[in-house]
Amino acid sequence: MKLHEAATTPNCRRVRIFLAEKGIEVPVVPVDVGKAENRQDAFREKNPMGRVPVLELDDGTFIAESVAICRYFEQLQPEPALMGGGDPVKAARIEMWQRRMELEITVPIMQVFRNTHPYFADRIQQYPDYGESQRSHATKRLEWLDHELAGREFVAGDEYSIADITAQIGIDFGRVTKFRVTEETPNLLRWHQAVSARPSAKA
Amino acid sequence: MKLHEAATTPNCRRVRIFLAEKGIEVPVVPVDVGKAENRQDAFREKNPMGRVPVLELDDGTFIAESVAICRYFEQLQPEPALMGGGDPVKAARIEMWQRRMELEITVPIMQVFRNTHPYFADRIQQYPDYGESQRSHATKRLEWLDHELAGREFVAGDEYSIADITAQIGIDFGRVTKFRVTEETPNLLRWHQAVSARPSAKA
Repeated sequence: MKLHEAATTPNCRRVRIFLAEKGIEVPVVPVDVGKAENRQDAFREKNPMGRVPVLELDDGTFIAESVAICRYFEQLQPEPALMGGGDPVKAARIEMWQRRMELEITVPIMQVFRNTHPYFADRIQQYPDYGESQRSHATKRLEWLDHELAGREFVAGDEYSIADITAQIGIDFGRVTKFRVTEETPNLLRWHQAVSARPSAKA
Repeated sequence: MKLHEAATTPNCRRVRIFLAEKGIEVPVVPVDVGKAENRQDAFREKNPMGRVPVLELDDGTFIAESVAICRYFEQLQPEPALMGGGDPVKAARIEMWQRRMELEITVPIMQVFRNTHPYFADRIQQYPDYGESQRSHATKRLEWLDHELAGREFVAGDEYSIADITAQIGIDFGRVTKFRVTEETPNLLRWHQAVSARPSAKA
């Protein structure tokens, strides 16, 4: 088994944190996204979307999509449960929060980067107005998340889960487009300091 | 248990098709999204995101996010497995394809609607150029999906899964913004006719 990935991308970090929390080590094959190695034919045979991370199993099966890779390891090694294990309500609640974090915070923050950051200026067609609208959207959702975190320790409840990881990788990636967690959102700040202090945050 | 939902929205249809395939009946509470009932305070107590569908359990727990609702029923009643059941590779493969269908096809098609359709003109700030870019993106991905479907019966493999449902609801919702499945993509057409012929398609 090996993990094709790039150190700098948030989706790869999601898998690294997830594996660190599970205590699983997987050999890594670095992919040079700066040189667009992921867009070349050899890589597209692993993932036609041309994106990292991709997990390669020993029988040659490729699993792309960071959350799908996490799902694989959750089923392979259920403990510690990060996606709810066998409890239907817990699994659904974590999936609800994982999706809220992804669709309302992490994806909008990535859209700010794609549509406004100079890194992508020569790489893709950017839509700066749309990018700025996503900044506003993510900012409002972070304020809402702060409000939610007043009542509990972690995003999906009293236990740490993949929903925390998804929020963490999005918020941290937001640094390059000037998202900051400050004392204006004290509950979010407390949560962010807590997840950042976990050993997995360095993964 | 009851399902708060609206007949016209694709995410509600995803849950209805999923339940029909499972043979599960859940009492429905209609939400009038045309009159923005979902944006009012009473509804936001069920889902602060102001979106349908929302599943209400008998103990008062609310589960929002269509895929999270599907996950709940998959664990509650595993057969027929639509999300891979207990097989780690199968569950991961289906989640990979479910996400590809959602993030590459269904979400872009919804973005075309949000950003270009007159329905939203007075409701939200639209970004028509971005919307058109998403039309182009979804169109290319549908061509790629056609290519993929040359080699197998369903989106994630030889068995029907939630990945088919997610593609189906996105593509069918695309009718209002002039997406059509034609003989130019013969494998996609064959697949679309097959899923449309299933009794669940009427759900």
